[in-house]
Amino acid sequence: MSSIDLMGLVRKKIKNLSAYHVENLSDEIKLHANENPYPPSPELLKKIFLGLGELELNRYPDPECRNLKQAIANKTGALPEQIIIGNGSDELIQYLMQVLCDEGDHIAFPDPTFAMYGITANCLGLNPVHFSLNHNWDFEAQPALKVLAKHKARLVFLSYPNNPTGNCFSEQPIQQIIEQFDGIVVVDEAYQDFSGKSFLKQMKNHNNLVILRSLSKIGLAGLRIGYGIFPSILAEQVNKVRLPYNSNTLSQCVATELLNDFNHVEKQIHSILEERDRVMHELSKLSSIITYPSNSNFILFKVPSGGENLFNKLKSNRILVRNLNSHPKLKNCLRVTIGTKLENNQFVEQLRKISP
Amino acid sequence: MSSIDLMGLVRKKIKNLSAYHVENLSDEIKLHANENPYPPSPELLKKIFLGLGELELNRYPDPECRNLKQAIANKTGALPEQIIIGNGSDELIQYLMQVLCDEGDHIAFPDPTFAMYGITANCLGLNPVHFSLNHNWDFEAQPALKVLAKHKARLVFLSYPNNPTGNCFSEQPIQQIIEQFDGIVVVDEAYQDFSGKSFLKQMKNHNNLVILRSLSKIGLAGLRIGYGIFPSILAEQVNKVRLPYNSNTLSQCVATELLNDFNHVEKQIHSILEERDRVMHELSKLSSIITYPSNSNFILFKVPSGGENLFNKLKSNRILVRNLNSHPKLKNCLRVTIGTKLENNQFVEQLRKISP
Repeated sequence: MSSIDLMGLVRKKIKNLSAYHVENLSDEIKLHANENPYPPSPELLKKIFLGLGELELNRYPDPECRNLKQAIANKTGALPEQIIIGNGSDELIQYLMQVLCDEGDHIAFPDPTFAMYGITANCLGLNPVHFSLNHNWDFEAQPALKVLAKHKARLVFLSYPNNPTGNCFSEQPIQQIIEQFDGIVVVDEAYQDFSGKSFLKQMKNHNNLVILRSLSKIGLAGLRIGYGIFPSILAEQVNKVRLPYNSNTLSQCVATELLNDFNHVEKQIHSILEERDRVMHELSKLSSIITYPSNSNFILFKVPSGGENLFNKLKSNRILVRNLNSHPKLKNCLRVTIGTKLENNQFVEQLRKISP
Repeated sequence: MSSIDLMGLVRKKIKNLSAYHVENLSDEIKLHANENPYPPSPELLKKIFLGLGELELNRYPDPECRNLKQAIANKTGALPEQIIIGNGSDELIQYLMQVLCDEGDHIAFPDPTFAMYGITANCLGLNPVHFSLNHNWDFEAQPALKVLAKHKARLVFLSYPNNPTGNCFSEQPIQQIIEQFDGIVVVDEAYQDFSGKSFLKQMKNHNNLVILRSLSKIGLAGLRIGYGIFPSILAEQVNKVRLPYNSNTLSQCVATELLNDFNHVEKQIHSILEERDRVMHELSKLSSIITYPSNSNFILFKVPSGGENLFNKLKSNRILVRNLNSHPKLKNCLRVTIGTKLENNQFVEQLRKISP
């Protein structure tokens, strides 16, 4: 028998963190996680099955993800050597920090934004700093650049469109940051398929720009495929810290098939956008609710009479949305993902009943 | 147009690293990667297909991997709360270092051993130190404990059986390290299914012991499923740095099915062990070669007349083994994975021709 002081061994910075909590209930109408409500096409599933025998699951995956990178290159115009596949773009966020930041360095992002930038920074012993968004959930370049300069930030993350506010920031301040910041600008375009807007083309003019994308919002959340487009010289460095087999065979294969036959997904995106506009219109009729414009597959809305209360009432009616009430700038705010027409109708109907 | 000094932004410690190189040729007899040469059973593949529609690939995976943890709990006797699933055990190695080590801290392992301990430490800005293995690829407790104490190591990794030497270290020195080291002892049992030996039962007596396992060597290398069994209090801390969706839906599902119907895998393991003993016997007849005892699914052997040369000749005959010649302690050494009977015959036959 031997016993050591286990908690004494754990880093102070880790001890003070909490684990990322994920709501995970079955049997709910899931409008909380910004997923595509539609399953992959039967044709895609059939292809997976027919190819399953040839995939050699007993062998390690292609560490270079060559087929998938080629499919992404075809879709984006990037060179395969600029592309890195992540086990979700979460992993790429971590790799960027690992490559660019020594312990104690600062990374920056607007507030509010995607929680994983701050969580990952904390897990690596880095210091997150933020600049505030205004009442339109937008920001100006100069104050942001001041924050970056003051803390000598190595990296700034701009979610575009921004999660959880739903909007794309104005182009001008982003452009100015790209031009004037002497660190790396990561434009996280996880929801780009819904906004149609991108900074990808700016990469040829600026060598400090990284674009992140994801297949999680357009139908493959379960498979964990994110990708980044990097200046080649930076991709080479990120590949040094990448776990050599970070992307598995089945996910690589399904993602490649999905990208190579994107029509089905495009139809789903089209339906989601139509539904988003319809839901937005319905919500705007409710006097108890303030909605914010969306360039994505979700809508942020405020319930001045009590967001927490509405969240709980929806939940007890089996409708799960995202409760953002604990964020100081998102008091009484909820985020709803656009679901199927039927799911959206149930959501709107419940909302009308509970909070007309 | 704007341009920054990109390499000036990259951490010094990263700049000096090289990316992990993986041999990846098609059309070879692959005896280089310690994979199971046999594919998953047709029944398993059929189950995957039949379940595919219900897996909801458009939804995020279960972040708690509940079904898979239960299957592992059933197999090992560990509690689900002690288990963490990794995207390969590579990822768990990284998480352990992230939780326990500040930048500049030391981690330890024997030399030679699995390369990822050192690579991962370097990527995180930690300092790897090692203690040497003797001519039997074994070690004594006292010199090892001295190294640990001298560098105030936080973690020691013991690959059991050891890769690439193939043997299990003696139990006594491991036991002494567990009892006397005031840091965490990680016994990496990636090849445990072949050795039948484990330190798992010691966990109830010692709270500084972590066991790592993997499904990569027994048939699912393509799916990236490693797992760790931790003292619950440490598991809780590791879960804080774990990316919330680090294990994807399909891998979780296939791994669960494999573990819940393990008979087929056990038969494969049995064949591999029979073949290993046969190949070992055949190699021992060759005067040009020195073999080392194996408790795993691979054999380390030395070619005093020139390992590099033999490696290249095998490769030009389409047989890929692992060339370890660049490691100072493994001069002229090669590692061959046990393949199918046919593959093993071709390997032995070529060896007889090239290096009788």
